Amino acid sequence: MQSALFTDFYELTMAQGYWRGAGRRSDGAAVFDVFFRHQPFKGGYSVFAGLEPLLHALAEFRFAADDIEWLDSLGMFERGFLDYLSSFQFRGDVWAAAEGELIFPQEPLLRVRADIIEAQIVEGLILNMINYQSLIATKSARVWRASNYGRIMEFGLRRAQGPDGAFSATRAAFIGGAEGSSNTLAGKVLSIPVMGTMAHSWVMSFPNERESFEAYAELYPDKAVFLIDTYDTLKSGVHNAIAVGSKLAARGKRFGVRLDSGDIAYLSREVRKTLDAAGLRDAFIVVSNELDEEIVENLVAAGAPIDQWGVGTHLVTGGSEASFTGVYKLAAVERAGKLDPTMKFSDNPEKATNPGVKQVWRLYGDDGFALADLIALEEERVEAGREIMLHHPSTDRRFLRVSPAKARPMLQKVMEGGRPAGPSPALADSKRRLREELTRFDASYLRLLNPHVYKVSISTRLFDLKLGFIDRYMK
Amino acid sequence: MQSALFTDFYELTMAQGYWRGAGRRSDGAAVFDVFFRHQPFKGGYSVFAGLEPLLHALAEFRFAADDIEWLDSLGMFERGFLDYLSSFQFRGDVWAAAEGELIFPQEPLLRVRADIIEAQIVEGLILNMINYQSLIATKSARVWRASNYGRIMEFGLRRAQGPDGAFSATRAAFIGGAEGSSNTLAGKVLSIPVMGTMAHSWVMSFPNERESFEAYAELYPDKAVFLIDTYDTLKSGVHNAIAVGSKLAARGKRFGVRLDSGDIAYLSREVRKTLDAAGLRDAFIVVSNELDEEIVENLVAAGAPIDQWGVGTHLVTGGSEASFTGVYKLAAVERAGKLDPTMKFSDNPEKATNPGVKQVWRLYGDDGFALADLIALEEERVEAGREIMLHHPSTDRRFLRVSPAKARPMLQKVMEGGRPAGPSPALADSKRRLREELTRFDASYLRLLNPHVYKVSISTRLFDLKLGFIDRYMK
Repeated sequence: MQSALFTDFYELTMAQGYWRGAGRRSDGAAVFDVFFRHQPFKGGYSVFAGLEPLLHALAEFRFAADDIEWLDSLGMFERGFLDYLSSFQFRGDVWAAAEGELIFPQEPLLRVRADIIEAQIVEGLILNMINYQSLIATKSARVWRASNYGRIMEFGLRRAQGPDGAFSATRAAFIGGAEGSSNTLAGKVLSIPVMGTMAHSWVMSFPNERESFEAYAELYPDKAVFLIDTYDTLKSGVHNAIAVGSKLAARGKRFGVRLDSGDIAYLSREVRKTLDAAGLRDAFIVVSNELDEEIVENLVAAGAPIDQWGVGTHLVTGGSEASFTGVYKLAAVERAGKLDPTMKFSDNPEKATNPGVKQVWRLYGDDGFALADLIALEEERVEAGREIMLHHPSTDRRFLRVSPAKARPMLQKVMEGGRPAGPSPALADSKRRLREELTRFDASYLRLLNPHVYKVSISTRLFDLKLGFIDRYMK
Repeated sequence: MQSALFTDFYELTMAQGYWRGAGRRSDGAAVFDVFFRHQPFKGGYSVFAGLEPLLHALAEFRFAADDIEWLDSLGMFERGFLDYLSSFQFRGDVWAAAEGELIFPQEPLLRVRADIIEAQIVEGLILNMINYQSLIATKSARVWRASNYGRIMEFGLRRAQGPDGAFSATRAAFIGGAEGSSNTLAGKVLSIPVMGTMAHSWVMSFPNERESFEAYAELYPDKAVFLIDTYDTLKSGVHNAIAVGSKLAARGKRFGVRLDSGDIAYLSREVRKTLDAAGLRDAFIVVSNELDEEIVENLVAAGAPIDQWGVGTHLVTGGSEASFTGVYKLAAVERAGKLDPTMKFSDNPEKATNPGVKQVWRLYGDDGFALADLIALEEERVEAGREIMLHHPSTDRRFLRVSPAKARPMLQKVMEGGRPAGPSPALADSKRRLREELTRFDASYLRLLNPHVYKVSISTRLFDLKLGFIDRYMK
């Protein structure tokens, strides 16, 4: 069970209002959209993640008896409402993008249609899980691409934001391209490969470095990776690794060395030369030490001979950006049996929302590359080969005409009446989806630095609906 | 139970080595220090937090039967070692600073003495919990101080790094000065005040703003805070709040308004004037919207009439810095029944460690202000009124003589044989400790921007021990 107290307190005070207003029980449905406002990391794209754990938690979201007792003790809730909460469960429908999809600002990534009380109480849970995992999947994809889709190991457990932070990060980093993790618990629960080398304390707990390597090689002849920077990488570490590793190599075993400090570009080249000179061309080099996307990209560009990347802190926290700007906004409410679009204006125009129940279409050109995304009303059909007008999502009058070779709806029904609509996809499938998607976007959108901005547009009908709201409001 | 699989995988492969090397069961004790390398947020201090939940988790750290089964399935561990893990528990001793203490780089914050296998397997858990909560307590203290120790509400649940991220953040933010949280679950479990106002969706779900405020005032006449920026703060929101709030005020109720967008400095002044002109001097102003320490400091400096601060994203993630650089390093190992100091050199000199079993002393001057911290060997006694030499923690030859008016040892025994050594202190006591500590440090150390660097020094005996290591090593 996921305690339904995992919610912002105002959801409960508002919920009591809805519950009263609707005569003991609201039948009024509402539609909420999750979307985000800005790409993290000054990037050109993000990666959607967190959906499967979210659906699982939504299906199990309940108030336990002592949760209700505690709420009662606050003296703000009446008995009838507390009884309602006792039997509360989320019974709504959810549409969402698939994990591993590339996503862009303003477009709905997930849409909830539910009784307004249910829809409100789950807001925090939805945002918490989607925001964090999408942040980390995005970061991971950036690091992965920076390494030329190389071998990334997620080593962030000790620097993650709490035990669950570590767990969720491992999951999202895997979707985003990491091939495994040091987090043993996540390895077990998520069936993700677990990996690791040795710590400085291993080396230091032996009388000398050589003995520590020998002991390790004897234990794990097939998995030996020697950490060579405890005393001096070039004067001591690499030579002890060669002395011990040569014996492994003579038995047909492949070993590695790990660099965890110093100038990685310089040291990796020197270590490579030394290994090669000893005839150990098969020995591989692992690096770690506060790696981040720019460092990985620079090392790759400089041709540093690195075979595996251990990435921790920045991968599991986001580093320079630690949050994803996902929000949950009301798009429509049921009035007189009909879903009535709603729109938020706000004193910041960029915080204005897109009204109504919506679908997102990804449009592709003849060359198979993504052209633009289109936010349309749900009942609109977008067809390949038919000309469409793409409007700027602000009320700017500029527009563009395109005839996409392919149009794909992004939001699929993933939950019906509070139950997941299908089996959970494998994590590896989400990673594969991401990898494929990345081949369908021009590289200019995928650059780490100053990427080209991918177009997210709105349909003529949504544009007119929005304009109608603004015109009415300005009067 | 906290699954002991919450550990970096290499701890387990190393543990098997220690276990074998010591003939079926290691009796070799080791001492590890937790310390950090750099102040986060370019600040002058950090705040220690996370200890109580850590001690609780350490006491419950076990491998379940299916954890062992899963480890077995990896084919890397022998039966005897798996049997050892089946009955594994942490039986070590822990010394630590108290939560809410100000802490500085290089000094041990927590020290573990345990069988080396036990000490290694708990490394990830210790770092994960101390790093994250200390980061957030530090951030919270900075925001609190920026607000002149005003009223901070933590609203970060939806932007925190996972559900536990939100929970741990609420706890640490409370220690660091927040007076409450929107996180209802944390409110219940930690007995922290829960708070909140209303969402835009509440306002939008009514036919108009006025009705939404009226409905809320009727429900919660003693707790009404109207969100006034859904349509237009100055043209609509504040006037509807006044219309509805005046009726509350006439009944002797105090109400508030919340600003969540636009130029907060300007809007708060205009809203204040409008409220005052309506005779509502008692009505209070709450602000939110991506607040962070610099914004709060600037608003306070500009004299913006703000009564309460709702801080979310940056408070629960750290914002610009999302990790705390705490590490766990071997300080001594038992050899021939005696604790033998160890030292890590590394290719980065600043990554070299302080050898031996150590205590940290906080030294105060005659004026009651903290002078410096001194890292000494455990058996050294530091006494008030006696002259001490303070050495630079690098092997720099500079030193300083001081005669402190007071000397306080920072590390206390908090766990003995794997059991907490005493009852858990109340969270409010940790917050009080922080508030008091902040009065004992010169303001120059506490500045947000370019603070003065507080001295952390080492004793003559530790200096000599370190030098001995380096001399031996250089040969």
